[in-house]
Amino acid sequence: MTQTPTDSMELPRFCGVPTFMRLPQAEDPEGLDAAVFGIPSDSGAPYRTGARFGPNAIRDMSVMLRPINPYRDLLHVFDHLKVADLGDTPVVPGYVPDTFAAIEAFVAPLARAGVISCAFGGDHSVSLPHLRAVAAQRGPLALVHFDAHTDTWDTYFGQKRDSAGTPFRRAAEENLVDPARSIQLGMRGSLFSPTDLSQSLDLGFDVVTTDDMMASSASVLADRIVARVGGAPVFLSFDMDVVDPAFAPGVQTPEAGGPSGFEMLNLLRQLQGLNLVACDVVETNPLYDGPGKITSLLAATVMAELLALMADTRR
Amino acid sequence: MTQTPTDSMELPRFCGVPTFMRLPQAEDPEGLDAAVFGIPSDSGAPYRTGARFGPNAIRDMSVMLRPINPYRDLLHVFDHLKVADLGDTPVVPGYVPDTFAAIEAFVAPLARAGVISCAFGGDHSVSLPHLRAVAAQRGPLALVHFDAHTDTWDTYFGQKRDSAGTPFRRAAEENLVDPARSIQLGMRGSLFSPTDLSQSLDLGFDVVTTDDMMASSASVLADRIVARVGGAPVFLSFDMDVVDPAFAPGVQTPEAGGPSGFEMLNLLRQLQGLNLVACDVVETNPLYDGPGKITSLLAATVMAELLALMADTRR
Amino acid sequence: MTQTPTDSMELPRFCGVPTFMRLPQAEDPEGLDAAVFGIPSDSGAPYRTGARFGPNAIRDMSVMLRPINPYRDLLHVFDHLKVADLGDTPVVPGYVPDTFAAIEAFVAPLARAGVISCAFGGDHSVSLPHLRAVAAQRGPLALVHFDAHTDTWDTYFGQKRDSAGTPFRRAAEENLVDPARSIQLGMRGSLFSPTDLSQSLDLGFDVVTTDDMMASSASVLADRIVARVGGAPVFLSFDMDVVDPAFAPGVQTPEAGGPSGFEMLNLLRQLQGLNLVACDVVETNPLYDGPGKITSLLAATVMAELLALMADTRR
Amino acid sequence: MTQTPTDSMELPRFCGVPTFMRLPQAEDPEGLDAAVFGIPSDSGAPYRTGARFGPNAIRDMSVMLRPINPYRDLLHVFDHLKVADLGDTPVVPGYVPDTFAAIEAFVAPLARAGVISCAFGGDHSVSLPHLRAVAAQRGPLALVHFDAHTDTWDTYFGQKRDSAGTPFRRAAEENLVDPARSIQLGMRGSLFSPTDLSQSLDLGFDVVTTDDMMASSASVLADRIVARVGGAPVFLSFDMDVVDPAFAPGVQTPEAGGPSGFEMLNLLRQLQGLNLVACDVVETNPLYDGPGKITSLLAATVMAELLALMADTRR
Amino acid sequence: MTQTPTDSMELPRFCGVPTFMRLPQAEDPEGLDAAVFGIPSDSGAPYRTGARFGPNAIRDMSVMLRPINPYRDLLHVFDHLKVADLGDTPVVPGYVPDTFAAIEAFVAPLARAGVISCAFGGDHSVSLPHLRAVAAQRGPLALVHFDAHTDTWDTYFGQKRDSAGTPFRRAAEENLVDPARSIQLGMRGSLFSPTDLSQSLDLGFDVVTTDDMMASSASVLADRIVARVGGAPVFLSFDMDVVDPAFAPGVQTPEAGGPSGFEMLNLLRQLQGLNLVACDVVETNPLYDGPGKITSLLAATVMAELLALMADTRR
Amino acid sequence: MTQTPTDSMELPRFCGVPTFMRLPQAEDPEGLDAAVFGIPSDSGAPYRTGARFGPNAIRDMSVMLRPINPYRDLLHVFDHLKVADLGDTPVVPGYVPDTFAAIEAFVAPLARAGVISCAFGGDHSVSLPHLRAVAAQRGPLALVHFDAHTDTWDTYFGQKRDSAGTPFRRAAEENLVDPARSIQLGMRGSLFSPTDLSQSLDLGFDVVTTDDMMASSASVLADRIVARVGGAPVFLSFDMDVVDPAFAPGVQTPEAGGPSGFEMLNLLRQLQGLNLVACDVVETNPLYDGPGKITSLLAATVMAELLALMADTRR
Repeated sequence: MTQTPTDSMELPRFCGVPTFMRLPQAEDPEGLDAAVFGIPSDSGAPYRTGARFGPNAIRDMSVMLRPINPYRDLLHVFDHLKVADLGDTPVVPGYVPDTFAAIEAFVAPLARAGVISCAFGGDHSVSLPHLRAVAAQRGPLALVHFDAHTDTWDTYFGQKRDSAGTPFRRAAEENLVDPARSIQLGMRGSLFSPTDLSQSLDLGFDVVTTDDMMASSASVLADRIVARVGGAPVFLSFDMDVVDPAFAPGVQTPEAGGPSGFEMLNLLRQLQGLNLVACDVVETNPLYDGPGKITSLLAATVMAELLALMADTRR
Repeated sequence: MTQTPTDSMELPRFCGVPTFMRLPQAEDPEGLDAAVFGIPSDSGAPYRTGARFGPNAIRDMSVMLRPINPYRDLLHVFDHLKVADLGDTPVVPGYVPDTFAAIEAFVAPLARAGVISCAFGGDHSVSLPHLRAVAAQRGPLALVHFDAHTDTWDTYFGQKRDSAGTPFRRAAEENLVDPARSIQLGMRGSLFSPTDLSQSLDLGFDVVTTDDMMASSASVLADRIVARVGGAPVFLSFDMDVVDPAFAPGVQTPEAGGPSGFEMLNLLRQLQGLNLVACDVVETNPLYDGPGKITSLLAATVMAELLALMADTRR
Repeated sequence: MTQTPTDSMELPRFCGVPTFMRLPQAEDPEGLDAAVFGIPSDSGAPYRTGARFGPNAIRDMSVMLRPINPYRDLLHVFDHLKVADLGDTPVVPGYVPDTFAAIEAFVAPLARAGVISCAFGGDHSVSLPHLRAVAAQRGPLALVHFDAHTDTWDTYFGQKRDSAGTPFRRAAEENLVDPARSIQLGMRGSLFSPTDLSQSLDLGFDVVTTDDMMASSASVLADRIVARVGGAPVFLSFDMDVVDPAFAPGVQTPEAGGPSGFEMLNLLRQLQGLNLVACDVVETNPLYDGPGKITSLLAATVMAELLALMADTRR
Repeated sequence: MTQTPTDSMELPRFCGVPTFMRLPQAEDPEGLDAAVFGIPSDSGAPYRTGARFGPNAIRDMSVMLRPINPYRDLLHVFDHLKVADLGDTPVVPGYVPDTFAAIEAFVAPLARAGVISCAFGGDHSVSLPHLRAVAAQRGPLALVHFDAHTDTWDTYFGQKRDSAGTPFRRAAEENLVDPARSIQLGMRGSLFSPTDLSQSLDLGFDVVTTDDMMASSASVLADRIVARVGGAPVFLSFDMDVVDPAFAPGVQTPEAGGPSGFEMLNLLRQLQGLNLVACDVVETNPLYDGPGKITSLLAATVMAELLALMADTRR
Repeated sequence: MTQTPTDSMELPRFCGVPTFMRLPQAEDPEGLDAAVFGIPSDSGAPYRTGARFGPNAIRDMSVMLRPINPYRDLLHVFDHLKVADLGDTPVVPGYVPDTFAAIEAFVAPLARAGVISCAFGGDHSVSLPHLRAVAAQRGPLALVHFDAHTDTWDTYFGQKRDSAGTPFRRAAEENLVDPARSIQLGMRGSLFSPTDLSQSLDLGFDVVTTDDMMASSASVLADRIVARVGGAPVFLSFDMDVVDPAFAPGVQTPEAGGPSGFEMLNLLRQLQGLNLVACDVVETNPLYDGPGKITSLLAATVMAELLALMADTRR
Repeated sequence: MTQTPTDSMELPRFCGVPTFMRLPQAEDPEGLDAAVFGIPSDSGAPYRTGARFGPNAIRDMSVMLRPINPYRDLLHVFDHLKVADLGDTPVVPGYVPDTFAAIEAFVAPLARAGVISCAFGGDHSVSLPHLRAVAAQRGPLALVHFDAHTDTWDTYFGQKRDSAGTPFRRAAEENLVDPARSIQLGMRGSLFSPTDLSQSLDLGFDVVTTDDMMASSASVLADRIVARVGGAPVFLSFDMDVVDPAFAPGVQTPEAGGPSGFEMLNLLRQLQGLNLVACDVVETNPLYDGPGKITSLLAATVMAELLALMADTRR
């Protein structure tokens, strides 16, 4: 099995069933360093829904991406990282706990095989079963979390403990992440209660608001992230709503007044030496993206930068 | 409290927060003959989702409608039927059983008060808790069900018994409807299994396919419906996907090759003497409707015809 | 000056600034048999607005049309009818009376020169100043009016006598049309008051509802129209909302449950011997048309059929 | 009457008829500190139209907003400011002067009761009757005006003195605003005549172009505004086209090359101590906003920041 | 290798990379009865372009389809016909002759292996190289061609002989089809020259206009087709623009006033005993389809009916 | 012939067939200083297509622009530069070499007459025949090229030497541009091969990446461009994908993470003294632009700034 993407200068990008970055499809992770897959669940979404169509929308736009990363010394990503597209996890629409079980069961063999699990959501609730599967093998992880919202509320509608607003409180409670090595970046906008931000600090996370980010530089922020993580294995979770809605209109809980696409990509490109063991890019909803599909393109580009970070670490 | 809609020749239709047909809002059903409300749940939807935004989309377009029905002898609908818009039922996204409980609890007081409950879905699963609340007061109802699909499957993903594909099997099992007085119309398209249609016949329902409908006339079909019902109290359920996708693109499970908007409205207009005690118009999903919002307009018009039928029966 | 359209088998349709059917532009009507122009006013619209962009949207899609009409014995339309595109009338947005004056002033020289004036609206209010200019030369005209609504109300918001809902009552009052030779076709849907239809009968118009049309054949309807007109000079006004919203979503006052595009075109193609002296196709609003632009295409095709009718009469 | 918004962690945001920020509706302003309402008029718009649908589009997206403002020391806005949604003013489409009278009549009782009037437009012409009603009670106001255009032209089409391009010249002429305490910010783009900018200076306003803004910092700009106003009662008018079209595509007169959403929100958040007595957020046109509805979300967020400013001043 | 589609009652339709009807992917045709593949070329399109994205758009919506066809006695299609999705042919955008060579080279092995080749276009020019590859094995074929246009012109822009308007003249000239056993159905609309229709008759084809179709019944038309073909091996070519634009807005050369989706599907369902050896469904352009994607759904359904016809013939 | 645009304060912008900036149309360039025209070819596009509709989309939005440029000392552009809209070049869809010949033949007379040729693409391949026609008169030109991609690859699909990815290698090979006086700005994103950027340096061009641009100021960049050009006659080519997709979603090869609209306009406005002899603004694709049409507006604004630069140089 080859992990080389189809060459888009030989066969046009619009030819063939799209996989992520035109990588080969695979049914099992054997021999892979990293596996990309979708988690098409939006049952945890409190407002907009439709992120179940996110993974395939991202695949569609990911055909624009090319294998060499100029931001990391002309790194040929797939020379250093064997990757395939494993398709999507099963889900049970309308039944969050069953969906969580299906996700965890899908990821567990990857975690056991030491394959880096790279997921496209789906709403943000899907990070929790993903974390459960990975932490079961690796112990508590450092969390690097980009988002406009903390997602550390306790319960949502009907006192439900599992929704897109609660995964990282659960993760802390279940010891899946180590808050002392974890950091949340990008929080902004109006609050439900005075504790929306402080609840994350109370859990032990570091919190960097959008205002903090805008007042800083990418290199300072990158250093702060790397320092916080301190060499621990990392789960990086990127919620597309961290970006300003102009750059990512296709999300489920947009928040006005965020950083630009350049600013976020630039920050990711300056991260050095993180030991990613799992990641996800979530909350892409193509129903709210315009015809230009810029949210899906940005989501695909974010994942490509994370793969480059993984390959760079292994080089 | 008045039930007269705002006069659209005095105050333009786009002025003010839209309620259904610009009817007054109410918090309780006292003094009403019928109550319109939304059931904004799409957690039961097996494919597309977003019908949670259906009720407000229908309200938006319903401002086009006027109070007098020329198809029933210039009937002034609200002279004979006191109606208000009760807002929406609560729901618990991602948790179908909890959502069902919330819906049933919302409808129960209406049913106890003898108010005709007129719901906008939401996916088709919401008919089940609605039926439970009404049948608890009225006993088994005659079901008149327009749909491209029978929705009488036993289980869906993960052996779940409650989804948009199963409500009418549950309704028959729970004795909420009397199959011998019930009829399903509009079924068409490819099948999962050879029993997709016969399973409804096995439950005792009458089934009229789209082909049957296209080969018949509106008056013959109307007579067949009325004869089947036989004077029993009726729950009429109208799934917008019964119409061809050209007339209703904004649905969750479109099926090519259906009747036109005119054909369906004409059939409803020829129904005489049905004793509606509850009804719903479901599966409108504005995310898939074009800018012309024709699905929402048609859904609103269908409900307006049902209100006219109720008023006509009372006249 | 040539009146031959650009040949779309030589120069692709998307090349060049689009004029109606790729006809030449002209600044004055000298030497023309008919002139096509836009009336980009939507200030009279009671609900949706944006028909000001209708004329150019129709021009865009009209490049699809070809000069020979197979429904009238392979008639080469422009061999028998010299036509040019005169651009648009001026308008004064937000000031209906001033707009009316500008429209009338634009049309008057055409009427004086005996050039058939063929307008694209704009909302339906624009028919009134158009009629004033033509009737000033030709006396009361026979009106052939396709529409879902009668547009014979007396006043609208703030007791204003000029709006998209009132032009044909004004036309009758001002003796611009001869009701005894006039006919309205396509009325349907709910009513503001019991007199919405009878008010047209009271003015002396013949009225054919959508239900009447659907129960009849195109040839019978065509005969009825021709008989009603009785050889008088005709103003034909075609409101795009007469068609079902599936075929014309891009209108300002959609009404569910109408005839199809084929049914309306077929009716126009069967009209024989009408003496059109002016016509308009109104209420096209591209903001509500989907990306397929089917409303604009249909509006352009309707006008092309009217030009063919004119050419056929002259042949 | 309570002024507490519906709790979006209890009842999902998509449940129920949307009011601004899910605030209660009210018919009269008694007991209120501020009233939010729509002015759904676009008859004054010189190019695009459809802003009549702006107020309800903003309400739809405003359900995303939460009551606590973290930029003003965790201010719970509605603990300090009693607010309700008063629906929309009447309008007379196509008749600007009549529309102005209707708007002024709607606002006058609010002004007399000392309630801060917070309007959603509508095109920018609606600021003039709003100003008339408020200035009648409060005398000449300080104007803080964000816009890509000065809107101080003398007349528009047909020498009309009232359009979206003229309100602030009229306001100065009628002594509704005090130019010496007034400031316009954000002007940019090509000009009709060499005096497009200097005409505002000639009237006595201070003018800050987009280039000036981009070369400055939010705190410097905020200080300049506060200093200019000098403690006078303020009418703040925010035209959504001041923001770059990427952040606000849904406007009526877009102008390329403006500030970002973050930059504008950050500026508003740094305003301290302004005595707002009235405000408006205008020119939102949902027909030009993409499916992500980012313009409506930003407009709602701007208004939420203005309410926070009012509450902060009162705290 | 299994040819059973994924079960959409077990794994939701939105899970996984979409193939046609969720059939397995294959790289070579060994063991197949029929192969579905895309031909993503739009370089031959004279007006709109973008059909290169048609095949994947059809795959996306084809997940709605189920394996059992109720119109042919509950036929389980894939029990009688082994089918896989072979992906797309290569193409060379902007170079029609090179693209033709690539298509022919892709189809040739299928034709040699006796596998029925089922293609999704792409613009209609792609039928020619497809025909070349199949006729090279099977000799001249009977052509059953549904389209609003004859596509039998001689040359297009720049005297080019290969474009979407010329394939069937070339096919007749090259003896790929037997005109005496061929029939074209659905032609309508305005003409470039008086010979647009007669040129097909001159080539020996039978021609059935849309008017002819609307005046006939599906069973009569089906009989006419079957009689014309006379048992010969058939190439069936279905241009989506044969359907009215309301049912198929997403096409490249829309023609107002056509049959409905039901009418066309009903006709296909009544075809009995045709010996299809190749087929295509062309001119689907998702860029012009609305958010409901009804054109893609209809195109997928048309192909599913053709597969059912093949399976039925083999049963 | 006058070169004064229609006055948008007299006649609303939506009135009449739109030409670029409402300039007069002309058939020949006599007496002009500069000519604007479209090159509606997208046959060279390797991924998305539809830029054939770009020129008219830009014309539509260009009506927003006004004749006076405030960034160059209140320059009245058309007082110093006689300009007309010459319509579009012919093209031969699907045949790149024939299209190139048609473009070169269209531009040649302009070049011979010394008229500055200002083109709207079309895909980027169209720059090559444009350069050929101009360089034939003026010798090798200085190239100022804004783009996310270098477009200096050697061949594309099927070893074709002419596509949107190759024009500037061809231009260097054919001595149409002088690399030593040429500069490319804005390159970013992932690479096909390690030489994607260095291949431009190898050809002798100066290359400024997006990262370089973001780390610099507009005035420094402007100085660098002017210095590089060194007074030579300039061909300025502006590919809309140089801007971030949030500001220009309607392009054919979007690349996430670019500069803003303000940043690019600001840079153009700071260019002084360039001797433009030809320019193009390419890759605008309205099918991927949202309803706000912000890409077309920005493309029109870019061209207006280039015209201002030309007028300023002549003043």
